[in-house]
This record gives sequence, structure tokens and C-alpha cells, in this order.
Amino acid sequence: MSDRSSADILDRRRFLRAAGLAGAGAAIAAAPAIAGEPAKPDPLITEVQDWSRYLGDGVDKRPYGSPSKFEKGVVRRDVSWLTASAESSVNFTPLHELDGIITPSGLCFERHHSGIAEINPANHRLMINGLVDKPLVFTMEDIKRMPRVNRIYFLECAANSGMEWRGAQLNGCQFTHGMIHNVMYTGVPLKVLLEEAGLKSNAEWLMLEGADAAGMNRSLPIEKALNDVMIAFAMNGEALRPEQGYPLRAVIPGWEGNLWVKWLRRIEVGDQPWQTREETSKYTDLLADGRSRKHTFIMDAKSVVTNPSPQAPLKQKGRNVLTGIAWSGRGMVKRVDVSMDGGRNWQTARIDGPVLDKSIVRFYVDFDWNGQELMIQSRAMDSTGYVQPSKEELRKVRGVNSIYHNNGIQTWLVHAGGETENVEIG
Amino acid sequence: MSDRSSADILDRRRFLRAAGLAGAGAAIAAAPAIAGEPAKPDPLITEVQDWSRYLGDGVDKRPYGSPSKFEKGVVRRDVSWLTASAESSVNFTPLHELDGIITPSGLCFERHHSGIAEINPANHRLMINGLVDKPLVFTMEDIKRMPRVNRIYFLECAANSGMEWRGAQLNGCQFTHGMIHNVMYTGVPLKVLLEEAGLKSNAEWLMLEGADAAGMNRSLPIEKALNDVMIAFAMNGEALRPEQGYPLRAVIPGWEGNLWVKWLRRIEVGDQPWQTREETSKYTDLLADGRSRKHTFIMDAKSVVTNPSPQAPLKQKGRNVLTGIAWSGRGMVKRVDVSMDGGRNWQTARIDGPVLDKSIVRFYVDFDWNGQELMIQSRAMDSTGYVQPSKEELRKVRGVNSIYHNNGIQTWLVHAGGETENVEIG
Repeated sequence: MSDRSSADILDRRRFLRAAGLAGAGAAIAAAPAIAGEPAKPDPLITEVQDWSRYLGDGVDKRPYGSPSKFEKGVVRRDVSWLTASAESSVNFTPLHELDGIITPSGLCFERHHSGIAEINPANHRLMINGLVDKPLVFTMEDIKRMPRVNRIYFLECAANSGMEWRGAQLNGCQFTHGMIHNVMYTGVPLKVLLEEAGLKSNAEWLMLEGADAAGMNRSLPIEKALNDVMIAFAMNGEALRPEQGYPLRAVIPGWEGNLWVKWLRRIEVGDQPWQTREETSKYTDLLADGRSRKHTFIMDAKSVVTNPSPQAPLKQKGRNVLTGIAWSGRGMVKRVDVSMDGGRNWQTARIDGPVLDKSIVRFYVDFDWNGQELMIQSRAMDSTGYVQPSKEELRKVRGVNSIYHNNGIQTWLVHAGGETENVEIG
Repeated sequence: MSDRSSADILDRRRFLRAAGLAGAGAAIAAAPAIAGEPAKPDPLITEVQDWSRYLGDGVDKRPYGSPSKFEKGVVRRDVSWLTASAESSVNFTPLHELDGIITPSGLCFERHHSGIAEINPANHRLMINGLVDKPLVFTMEDIKRMPRVNRIYFLECAANSGMEWRGAQLNGCQFTHGMIHNVMYTGVPLKVLLEEAGLKSNAEWLMLEGADAAGMNRSLPIEKALNDVMIAFAMNGEALRPEQGYPLRAVIPGWEGNLWVKWLRRIEVGDQPWQTREETSKYTDLLADGRSRKHTFIMDAKSVVTNPSPQAPLKQKGRNVLTGIAWSGRGMVKRVDVSMDGGRNWQTARIDGPVLDKSIVRFYVDFDWNGQELMIQSRAMDSTGYVQPSKEELRKVRGVNSIYHNNGIQTWLVHAGGETENVEIG
């Protein structure tokens, strides 16, 4: 398999020659090519189909639209079996069913600590108190009258891929990597709100607190708060979804999802971290020597091939598209390499679509599959020069006690029949 | 009102001084500032609210999410009263409820000619025939094995703002400008499919045909087809919505929405336009002298202030955010100016969020309202130097018989009480 860059999409003739393909479409009046089967007449192209014979539904029945009934399997998958209750559980984004860089709001993974708080925005308040000149309380209307910005960011749970530390080998990228989504947020820079309250000179940390029954709270260094943190009220153009913190959430670009406090009701300004449950007994990484890494806020560069993958096996020989996503909490994704042979040879994938700071990018490798076994891997590089490590390299440094911050390279084994499984290679 | 550029968001102190504001948030234990009312204790900030007392719903009940029940008024509005039937009608995007640049798939306006074709993708086919070396038939699987790209584009119906030609003054931007949406498409460049079939040397035009009962069809010049046209199967990351052409639609960047054939089943290659109903009796502009403009494909630069607007009046004096959207079918939006006094004085708005080719951009003016009457207008300029005209200028050239291609400047009159209405000014 030769190296191919994004420019090569323009050079289709060379691609087709290299792939040895006559074309993906079937010659007319012949069935679409299925490996090993002879072409036969396709009744569907000579018959008028039902949907062309009758009027469809009119516009008045769907004031707010939903996907086609033929896509009903494209859903978040919950794993309540894994947790004590559904109220403190998680479901996963179906990465293998998505494309581009935007996650539809209805498919963004969820993680709650006491279920979805159902908040009437008219009665919601955001308080800023602590080491400020003037404690303030904002209504939602107040917040929406302040200067706002729009940014596309990924949100990844620190525990994404966590079960893979010890080689759980969950069978599908939805389960191994599906605690991530990427949407456009609209909101007010936190800097604007803090300047309104006036920070005292010893202000060093913030505590963000949610209005859910868990009162989810985390400490945040003031430097980050004054840099790119947003207090968001909209995602993908519309109001936040209930399960994403409606009516107000924190957006902490590039940092672990647990910090992105949902149903945000209070920001306290202090001079040191609060040592909350979520940054002491949880969201710390236990090393082999018994010590813990703490305040591991940043999500390092990572990537995963979403197709093919265990939930989306290869279906036929010949032309195929490999695709996946890559991201980095330290900046922009600069390059993604893909291996088909378990890391012996690498080619640079074609990144297509917007490349933005702390956003997912979409990558592709257009390839020809002759039916051989493949060991597929992807490896992201970011704008700081950081290269996504192997799981082996990560374990050497951090041991196998960790739950969080597994950004190791994922391997999918594609069998000769096309079935694909999650494997570990040394 | 002074000119303010996007850099000014950083200079908050000057802004606050100019606006004469102490802050948008209320001092603690006082109610949020309401114009003319004295501050009083706010019970909501001392009481624990219900949503903080009880566990919320768990993750398992919503495999595909939907908006909060408090947002149930945020919907497309249909105008079946305007048309012979709901199957050949339209509904409108609620622009005044949205922010950023992405339109949620569930809120994208619809326009059908024979209702929503309900297509089983397993049985859908795309045929390419006519002046080609090799007629081809593609299954959806075939198309998804070809090199794909991701692009964010606006789609505007040629009839958007059509009723305003003669001054209908529909009462809200959802109705005057709501036949537009802006999403990220994933699909195959049409160029790739045409190269696969092989164009004959006399190939000059294409005919795109839908699989709905109307068999909606339009002619498309080959130059555009080979430039940036996409055959898309996904929008905003997931499969196209049924009302947007599931499983396959044409994406004709910057050109009128009627050309973006939905439920696409056939592309015929020819040497001249087909003169279909949709490009002769419809989608032509009748001039004052009785002749018609034809093949007016491109959507010229346009903009509208979405807030304030008749459906989203100003609610209180002091700090406020004016926002809106701008777009151009000829390239990128370069600048948007806003007037508060019916076009006598203009200030450059702050554009925030991605500025992309043939995509909506979002603009803002952060301003202080002292309760005076306002005549609000916006004016887009694009990368070709084209400036959005007034309705008066448009009528001078095109008369008042037109339905399509009204890209004139919109005026909203904000009364002293905040109520806002659609007005015409000479």
C-alpha cells in the first residue's frame, strides 16, 4: 500500500489504476458487484418504486424532525449494567455510524452522576462568589445579553477507552471510544463574567458547581478560566440538550469532560483547589508505585478508526473507505497516520473538513481490499509535535491501575471474511 | 452609536463605560435588574430548587435525544394554508431561536413537491446515463465506498423572502427569511462519479432527477457539476433526514435550493438544458417588461438580523445583543454592516465563528439600548466585492413581479416598548 496525501483525491486516474478497479458502480442493467458473484439484471432499475408512485407525508407532521425509520439502530448505547444505577451511568456515541466532524446533538454520549436535572430556565441562576469584588447572580436572560462567541470543540470523558487499560477489548469503537462528541457551542467567555465580578488579587482557582442532585463540582485553575473557557447555552445552533446541561454548562476546551460542569449554577473563586470527590477519589490515576497522578486535566492527542471496526465490518473486496477521527486537547491535529499491518508500515491519511483548535478532525484512507487479513491502527500527531503512543508505551510509564487518560493506539483485526475485532498487539 | 470592530470584545472596560452599565448580573441577594424596578431579594438563590433535590432521569430512556420540554416552541412553522396541499408546501427554520452557524437537522426548513418520499436505502439506486461512455447504476453501498468530502454549506430556497417583493411584511424572520439552513454535508464529489461513467465530448448539461412522486428535476451546467457539487448521504454527521432527501441528495453550493434535488435517483448527461417545469414556468423571474430572467442559479449576498426581530422583541433597556446571519452564493462573506437608524449610519458587526466558502456566518453587535425607537438593518458584503442592495434598488431593476431572488435589505422597527415589526422604508 503506497503513501497517499490529501492532494491525491484530485488524481483519481492514478488511484483507480493503482487499485485495479473498473469502477464502483455497476454497468447498467447489471447488479452491483458483489465479490465472487456473477452480474445479473437488477429489477430495481427497471421498475418504478413505491416511493415514486404515491405522495409522501406533508410538512405539517414533523415540527421538529427525527431520523429515518431505517436508521433506528443509530443510537447511543447505554451500559447501565456496568453501573450501580441508570442515574449514575453512561451511554456512548455511535462513532461508527457518523461522518464529518459534527456530532448530532441527539447522539452525543451522556454521563450523569445523579440523572438529568430537568431545569426551568426561567428559574435558573448562575452565582459568582468567593474572592471577587462584587458577588453576582445572573439569570439566563442576563447571560444572553452579554457578548458571545461560537466555537467547535470536542468533549472527551477522561474514562474514554478506560476499560482498555487492562485489555477489556470491548467490541466496537462505540464502546471503546464513544465517550466523545464534537459540537459547536455558543456562549459567553468566562473571562467576561469574571471581569464583571472583579477578581481579587489572590484569586487562583475556581470551583464550578452543577445544579443536579449530585452538585457535581470541580476545581479549575484561573489561567485556564481566563483563557478559552466558555459558559455555553447553545450547542449546534439550538439550546443545550437536557442531558448536556440545559440551560447552562461549562466548556473547558481540550480538558477532561468531567470539568465541563453541566446545569452550572455557581462559580466560586478561591486561592487553592477544593479537593472535591471528583478530583481526589475519582479522576486521578493510580500509578504502579501506589502514588496517584492528580489534576491531569488535558486530553492528549488520540485517534480511532471508526470504519472498519467491529460494529462496521468490511462487506466486500475492492474499493473501500477507511475513516476515523482524531483530536488533541493541546491544539490542532496536524497529521494522522494509518497502518494496515499492525504498525509495521504507515501511510498518511487524508484529513478532510475543517481543522480547528481542540476539535475533532475527520480522516480517510481510500483503499483497495483484496480480502487479506488487516491489522488496522491510527496514530495522531498534534501541533505541539506530540505523537499518540502505543498502549504498551503508556503502560510502561503508568502501569495498569489507571482508568483515565488512555490515549493509546487502538488495533482492529479485520479477518479474511471482513469481520472485525478488537485486539491487543505487543 | 460608535463603530465597533471584533477586536472590541477584548476591551470590555471601554464597552461598559460607553454603555454606562454597572454589569449585567445583579449584586447578590438582589433580583436581576429589571428596567425601572427596585432590586429585591431573589428567593431562587437562597432556596434549593427541586431539580437539585431529586435524582433525574437516567441515561437509558433516550437512545436518541430531543430538546428540553421548555424549548417546545422552537420548531419549524408550516404554512400549509398558503399552498394547495401539505404535500406541496413549505415550513420555515426558526432563525430567531438559533445561534452559531449550524442549523440542527431537526429544524431545517422543508420544501416538497409531492411530500416526503420514504425510501429504503437498500433498494435505492442512482443511475448515471445519457452522454457517457458507460452508463452506471450505484447502490448506496457503492457510493459509500468512494472518496468522500465534508463541507458546510447554506441551502436557500430561491423563493426565500419572496413575499416581501411586494411588501407582504410577514411578521418574523422565520417567515421572511426562514427558507435557509446551513449544515455540514458528507458525500462524494459529483466529479468522481462522472469520471467513473466517462463524459462524452458533447456533454454540456446534466439533468438531476428525484425519486419522489413529483420526479423533481432540474438542469445543471457541467462546469458547476465538475467544480464543487457533491452527492451527499450525511448531514451534520448522521444520515440525511427523510425530509432532506434521505438517502441521497445533490448539494449545489451557493445555488438555489430547488437545484439540490432530494431522493436523487438519476443523473442524465446531455448537450443542452432540459427546460423542465421547474426552470420554465417556475424558478424564473418575470420582469416588468414581460420578459423573464432564467437560469438565475446563484443566490446573491444577503443577511438578516434574527434578534431583535418581530418574534424576538427587545425585553429590557441597557445591555443587549443584536445578532444575525449573512451568506453569499458567490464565495465568502467579507463584512456585515448594521444600521440602527434605517440606513443613515452604519457600523461594522463582529463576525464570530468559522467564515467558510458559501456558508452562513454569524454576526453580532453588542449594544446598549436606552429605550429609543430603532430601525434595524443589516447589509452583507462578499469576497467578490458585491454589496447587498436595498429592496428599492432591486425593484428598480427587476420590477415587482418576481417571486424569487429577493436579497434586499430587511428592516425591523423596534418600538419604544421593545415590540418589533417588519417595515418597509423608501
